[in-house]
Amino acid sequence: MVQVLYDFSAEPGNNELSVREGETVTVTNQNIGGGWIEAQNSRGEVGLVPEDYLEVSPLFMHTHAPPPPNQNHSTNQQTVHGSNEQISTGTFCGDNNASWDIALCPETANQSNRAILGGSRCSNCQTFVRLPLSRFPGFSKSGPELYLLAKQLVKGSQKLSIYMGEVGPVWSYPDNQLDCVVADPKKGSKMYGLKSYIEYQVTPNTTNRPVNHRYKHFDWLYERLLDKLGSAIPIPSLPDKQVTGRFEEEFIKMRMERLQGWMTRMCRHPVVSSSEVFQLFLTYKDEKDWKTGKRKAEKDETVGVMIFATIEPEAPDLDPIEVEQKCDQFSRFTKAMDDGVKEILTVGQEHWKRCTGPLPKEYQRIGKAFQNLSSVFNSSGYQGEATLTDAMTAAGKTYEEIALMVAEQPRKDLHFLMETNNEYKGLLGCFPDTLAVHKAGIEKVKEGDKLVATSKITPQEKVTMAKRVSTMSYTLQAEMNHFHSNRIYDYNRVMQLYLEEQAKFYETIAEKLRQAHAQFTTM
Amino acid sequence: MVQVLYDFSAEPGNNELSVREGETVTVTNQNIGGGWIEAQNSRGEVGLVPEDYLEVSPLFMHTHAPPPPNQNHSTNQQTVHGSNEQISTGTFCGDNNASWDIALCPETANQSNRAILGGSRCSNCQTFVRLPLSRFPGFSKSGPELYLLAKQLVKGSQKLSIYMGEVGPVWSYPDNQLDCVVADPKKGSKMYGLKSYIEYQVTPNTTNRPVNHRYKHFDWLYERLLDKLGSAIPIPSLPDKQVTGRFEEEFIKMRMERLQGWMTRMCRHPVVSSSEVFQLFLTYKDEKDWKTGKRKAEKDETVGVMIFATIEPEAPDLDPIEVEQKCDQFSRFTKAMDDGVKEILTVGQEHWKRCTGPLPKEYQRIGKAFQNLSSVFNSSGYQGEATLTDAMTAAGKTYEEIALMVAEQPRKDLHFLMETNNEYKGLLGCFPDTLAVHKAGIEKVKEGDKLVATSKITPQEKVTMAKRVSTMSYTLQAEMNHFHSNRIYDYNRVMQLYLEEQAKFYETIAEKLRQAHAQFTTM
Repeated sequence: MVQVLYDFSAEPGNNELSVREGETVTVTNQNIGGGWIEAQNSRGEVGLVPEDYLEVSPLFMHTHAPPPPNQNHSTNQQTVHGSNEQISTGTFCGDNNASWDIALCPETANQSNRAILGGSRCSNCQTFVRLPLSRFPGFSKSGPELYLLAKQLVKGSQKLSIYMGEVGPVWSYPDNQLDCVVADPKKGSKMYGLKSYIEYQVTPNTTNRPVNHRYKHFDWLYERLLDKLGSAIPIPSLPDKQVTGRFEEEFIKMRMERLQGWMTRMCRHPVVSSSEVFQLFLTYKDEKDWKTGKRKAEKDETVGVMIFATIEPEAPDLDPIEVEQKCDQFSRFTKAMDDGVKEILTVGQEHWKRCTGPLPKEYQRIGKAFQNLSSVFNSSGYQGEATLTDAMTAAGKTYEEIALMVAEQPRKDLHFLMETNNEYKGLLGCFPDTLAVHKAGIEKVKEGDKLVATSKITPQEKVTMAKRVSTMSYTLQAEMNHFHSNRIYDYNRVMQLYLEEQAKFYETIAEKLRQAHAQFTTM
Repeated sequence: MVQVLYDFSAEPGNNELSVREGETVTVTNQNIGGGWIEAQNSRGEVGLVPEDYLEVSPLFMHTHAPPPPNQNHSTNQQTVHGSNEQISTGTFCGDNNASWDIALCPETANQSNRAILGGSRCSNCQTFVRLPLSRFPGFSKSGPELYLLAKQLVKGSQKLSIYMGEVGPVWSYPDNQLDCVVADPKKGSKMYGLKSYIEYQVTPNTTNRPVNHRYKHFDWLYERLLDKLGSAIPIPSLPDKQVTGRFEEEFIKMRMERLQGWMTRMCRHPVVSSSEVFQLFLTYKDEKDWKTGKRKAEKDETVGVMIFATIEPEAPDLDPIEVEQKCDQFSRFTKAMDDGVKEILTVGQEHWKRCTGPLPKEYQRIGKAFQNLSSVFNSSGYQGEATLTDAMTAAGKTYEEIALMVAEQPRKDLHFLMETNNEYKGLLGCFPDTLAVHKAGIEKVKEGDKLVATSKITPQEKVTMAKRVSTMSYTLQAEMNHFHSNRIYDYNRVMQLYLEEQAKFYETIAEKLRQAHAQFTTM
């Protein structure tokens, strides 16, 4: 019997056991490894708990073992500790978030709280590990000057082009848009069946050959993309890890759908989709290929602001004042859109609740009331009213059908409206960082004269800085334009889908009512 | 300055003043007459108050003056005193009941509480008067034996026939169904403009010549019909007197609509529609004709149970046991239907509230959210998204239109469903009395042998009683069948109307959504 030191929320489908601080559990297997211990709670439930969350002698202390939550036990500046579980449990109300059909606290749908959710399960051993690099390369000690003042830029690596399009700077888009399908979730297990996991099949349209990936692989990919491209390109968070479904199946379906959304967005980005690590993820040939690629990606040194070194705008340097105005406008725009998106999410959430709660109940009651009156009529003993009672019963059943339709409808239309807006909420949450990296670059260049005067940099370095900040500005503008064109596409599509489904919904109801109407005697 | 002795609720449109017990008012005119006094309250409002409700010297004591409310000051057994105002104010919550769009207390819609609402305004002087006869002829001391043991029945008066139809005993229906239109309410005034009233135009399809009637005339007609036919035929109450509209216009419209409903139902009844008093009401030629007819009707002695004396079933006497079974079945049926009708009223009331309250607000918020996001998009500075923003604005406006439609819809369909069910609730509330009169007759006949043995009646009278109770049974069954056939017609009609309007409603919404959908770019 040991005591639980900290709250731990089990990830569904992983044989884990949720425990609460102060609870007493029985250790049933200390030989699991990977930082895990098998324990049984007072209700007889058995599952894995991180060993550091339990007050046991550190017999099996794993090298990756996390420090206890909420203790600032960092060994170096860049380490962010895996204390996310406890915080996230609070943030997510411990509530079901597999779909939009339950009350969410306002924070739940917030995918931009990456700052809080700092930890991650180690991709090898499933324990919590520090992040390999800071999550905010732009804010790391080095800052944009690492790139702006770098003596030598990337040697011989592939360059990313930016052209001047009709709308301004744009990325060079591939002729054939990469796409992939995330499907067919399957349960796998490891550690002699003690730990199970879900594997998704990911099939890119280029090779049409499926590869398997677990959630943690997606998470690994996200981390790589964030490290490598996050200073220049907003990389939206993966669907929330701590989200738990009411049923495992529902949870898996929801996660898959969101992973699909995330992958589609990544595929659509010309820089992301052409990156080596993304290609590896989609097209690795075998386990060995995957492991080699992973090691290579993790050793990649062109990360953080150094990504700008691989970008080559094919146009003259930009006017810094004009650029600043554009950035300010975009900053205001993203803020306003964030508000607009949140409004839709709030209203949609309420509408969801009404459509799945009181409204169908009311239609059901109307249906029941008609049917009850019909059966009273049936008992009248008066002959020749079968037509009326049959028609009234049918009308009552129609309202019961409408009740079901009303309750089901949000999944058919509102769901996608909510998902899209939620995705955009996450995406918009990334822009402040991206804009801040750029702003820091601009500020550095503004200090140019002072830095030359105090001999902090040479006049030549000042010229180089201005040129490089211009590259950063091209990048940011290409990103803005990428965002806008995607936004227009996405909202066009989701509004069409929503209105189409809504129209169909009302048409079906009208049809059913017409049929019910036809059963009454024409007089 | 005088004190108010009892609460008094002003009838709208009549220049009356609502006062509360204990309030002090200033008498501004004692010479109004008709039992009324003009008074001014502390808020400066001036209007008429019944003189007996004020603590003034009985200088102008009117012969019709009512005793004060809640005092059992009866001069004879049959007198029911006009103490209704105070009670009814409580019953109706003092709330607006002009339509179904406001919360009603469960008692409000209850039209069967005639027992409480005993008084009536005198049709000549607008004061409260005792009812000419008990409201419940069946329960009067005389009871059905007045008819069962009457030495001599009606001399030479018109007989009402009952035939054996396919469904059993039925009234003899006229070839041409009487009908009338209640329309064109106009404000009139009397007492030198001190008291105003509303006059409705009533046009029967027989003469096609309009006659004018005030509410009190309808009320007079109701009293006459109740006195004359109420023992045999359920006469539903008039629309509630104390109902007050939010606006006078709305109130008048609502009252007119309900008077129309009541008149239509009365026209449809072969016995009511052919009665002299009803014909007088619809076709009087001039004021003199009306006054003469009124006096005659008020002197009519064939009232209460004596109505059965005018009924002649053209068939052999009925088997009392079979009759009792039918009555029991009908009694159960009306009880069950009363429950069913109340269920619809309750559900409908809730649905009304949702449709006029939270639901349109939500659609409006959805509409606003779309429009807000559209105007944010408009500020993007990105070129070529006018199609999207225009379409999104249009979609937003569509949802605002839907909000209005949702809020307006109950008046177009639910209203009639509620009105019909409310009418039936009133009608069903009359049946217990009608059934009780019949049951009392049956019981009397059952006592027959005992009564003969104790020489209370002669053997010949026993035979007469049995014959006459059979007439009562025919009457009741004709009424049941009349009720059933009307019920089938009414519910067929109201369900058709409801479903037709509902279908149209959803079709219109779907069309609007299709139009909004078409504005988005097809991709």
